[in-house]
Amino acid sequence: MNIQDKKLLCSLAIVLTLASCQPSQIAPPIDPLPSWNDGTVKKAITDYVMRVTDTTSTDFIPAADRIATFDNDGTLWAERPYVQELFVFYQVKSMIAKDPSLAMKQPFKAVVEHDKAFLEKGGMTLLLELLTATHTGMTEDELEENAKAFFSSAVYPGKNVPVKQVRYQPQLELLDYLRDNGFKVYICTGGTVEFVRSISMDFYGVPSEQVIGSSFKYVFVDSTRSIYREPALNHFNDKSAKPAAIQLLIGKHPVLACGNEGGKGDIAMLAFSQAGKYPSLQLLVNHDDDVREFMYSEDDSASLKAAAQNKWQVISMKNDWKRVFPE
Amino acid sequence: MNIQDKKLLCSLAIVLTLASCQPSQIAPPIDPLPSWNDGTVKKAITDYVMRVTDTTSTDFIPAADRIATFDNDGTLWAERPYVQELFVFYQVKSMIAKDPSLAMKQPFKAVVEHDKAFLEKGGMTLLLELLTATHTGMTEDELEENAKAFFSSAVYPGKNVPVKQVRYQPQLELLDYLRDNGFKVYICTGGTVEFVRSISMDFYGVPSEQVIGSSFKYVFVDSTRSIYREPALNHFNDKSAKPAAIQLLIGKHPVLACGNEGGKGDIAMLAFSQAGKYPSLQLLVNHDDDVREFMYSEDDSASLKAAAQNKWQVISMKNDWKRVFPE
Repeated sequence: MNIQDKKLLCSLAIVLTLASCQPSQIAPPIDPLPSWNDGTVKKAITDYVMRVTDTTSTDFIPAADRIATFDNDGTLWAERPYVQELFVFYQVKSMIAKDPSLAMKQPFKAVVEHDKAFLEKGGMTLLLELLTATHTGMTEDELEENAKAFFSSAVYPGKNVPVKQVRYQPQLELLDYLRDNGFKVYICTGGTVEFVRSISMDFYGVPSEQVIGSSFKYVFVDSTRSIYREPALNHFNDKSAKPAAIQLLIGKHPVLACGNEGGKGDIAMLAFSQAGKYPSLQLLVNHDDDVREFMYSEDDSASLKAAAQNKWQVISMKNDWKRVFPE
Repeated sequence: MNIQDKKLLCSLAIVLTLASCQPSQIAPPIDPLPSWNDGTVKKAITDYVMRVTDTTSTDFIPAADRIATFDNDGTLWAERPYVQELFVFYQVKSMIAKDPSLAMKQPFKAVVEHDKAFLEKGGMTLLLELLTATHTGMTEDELEENAKAFFSSAVYPGKNVPVKQVRYQPQLELLDYLRDNGFKVYICTGGTVEFVRSISMDFYGVPSEQVIGSSFKYVFVDSTRSIYREPALNHFNDKSAKPAAIQLLIGKHPVLACGNEGGKGDIAMLAFSQAGKYPSLQLLVNHDDDVREFMYSEDDSASLKAAAQNKWQVISMKNDWKRVFPE
């Protein structure tokens, strides 16, 4: 066969391939968000994604700028209690197993004795003290091993299921839907970064470099070439610290941001998202489903008020979600 | 045509396409690194990339873990002087144009009067003072606008070319080669993050979220929804601070790291890269070409000694690079 013949045959083959490999019957469009009920919020999401990915639309956003940021606790998985709180208790137990004398010392003593009054009275300061005691003074590798061991057996209280089962199914679909449409999805969490990273790919399909979180101070030790976790907070990723961290790590306004009401932690992130140069979408998960999940709200409804004022979409777990957790 | 016929025709068409669309004559392989001379270093790079991308090799690295980090000053572009130093002077001039009284005040006075003695005597402290004065006390958007304006007209002293022309051509090819082989390329620079980001895509094809640099403190201002740059250093990304930042932002050891001798700034990053779980490659640019670039070295040759001790590849600009700058 000479080159001309080959070229002709090749062209013919391509034409035939294109002409004959179409399905004979057009299948109905597949719903990318099957666990979402039809309604205002679902429509706002799909309309937005269609507009900003349509090259002929004035709302088109280049793929490189399609940054989406999601809070984690109460937004991607349940937060009553925080999963990281379970890890703190797990760490306390491991530490006491190695050094029983710790059980006599606060704040370990209160944890062992389930001294709720002491723990509640201590508030944020005590929480930070416990977090520091259980998350630092070791190498990064050691902490990551501990997190891995924790997740392999952890059970979520009240629901008696592995922690993986308290992720929100509709949100898993949303993450996939956004990625399928060229969005780069980040987690921007109040949890510590390495803890969330230890499950971010497995639980959410999010690689470690797309997790922004709270952190302790890292020190590189030349002699061992390892990262040592100093007992000093580097960054507490909540409220207005979230946009600051997003600027530092990503350098762009997210065009889509999703948080939840409950701790007022995501108002600033959603506001920052709305202040970018592109059309944007803000989503706020409302915990209004005491049957399937939990019902709780802020003392002053700050998040819901901000949503109303700024036209953010409020996701009612009760009404917008067909299902809350994976099967 | 019924479905069976269609299926048959479709299969046939695919077979024909595969069989006949191969080129009749096999073209010689294209050299991915044409500005590199053949030699130990070039071979080490191409051998490494082939090994770690070969699924049948025991050295195979999954694409998600193919993280490469490059220093910028002296590694991707010339650093005599630092480009950011030129920006500092540009900012000083702009500030004095708006407020002439600044020209009478130090450290602005020394800059205006080219008072080298004063500037040299001030050392690191003065440099930080100048950097703070010219890079903070404004919003992030303002700083980014200034950087953009600077780069649109900046000329590199001595060479009298636009700053873009002092990038190293062989390194541009290396960045492309790595990306073509599924590596995610980061810049990990001592320069401030937003300054390098303002040209990272245009100059190097690196998106803003893949730039790690020094930073000042960012504060999110609720009322304006903007990021304000506080006059306080947040992170100075040099030496052992580099691996710490890589851990914080990426959460993985780079499998390939490239720095340069001159300021001992990259030893820790290369050591950290070598301490990961995968086969890795470390590259160190040696400034030994006083004809085409510059010749300089560290007082104690710490970087070259570390390279020899740890079997890192030393890139001789003089011998390994066919060409230094783009045409």
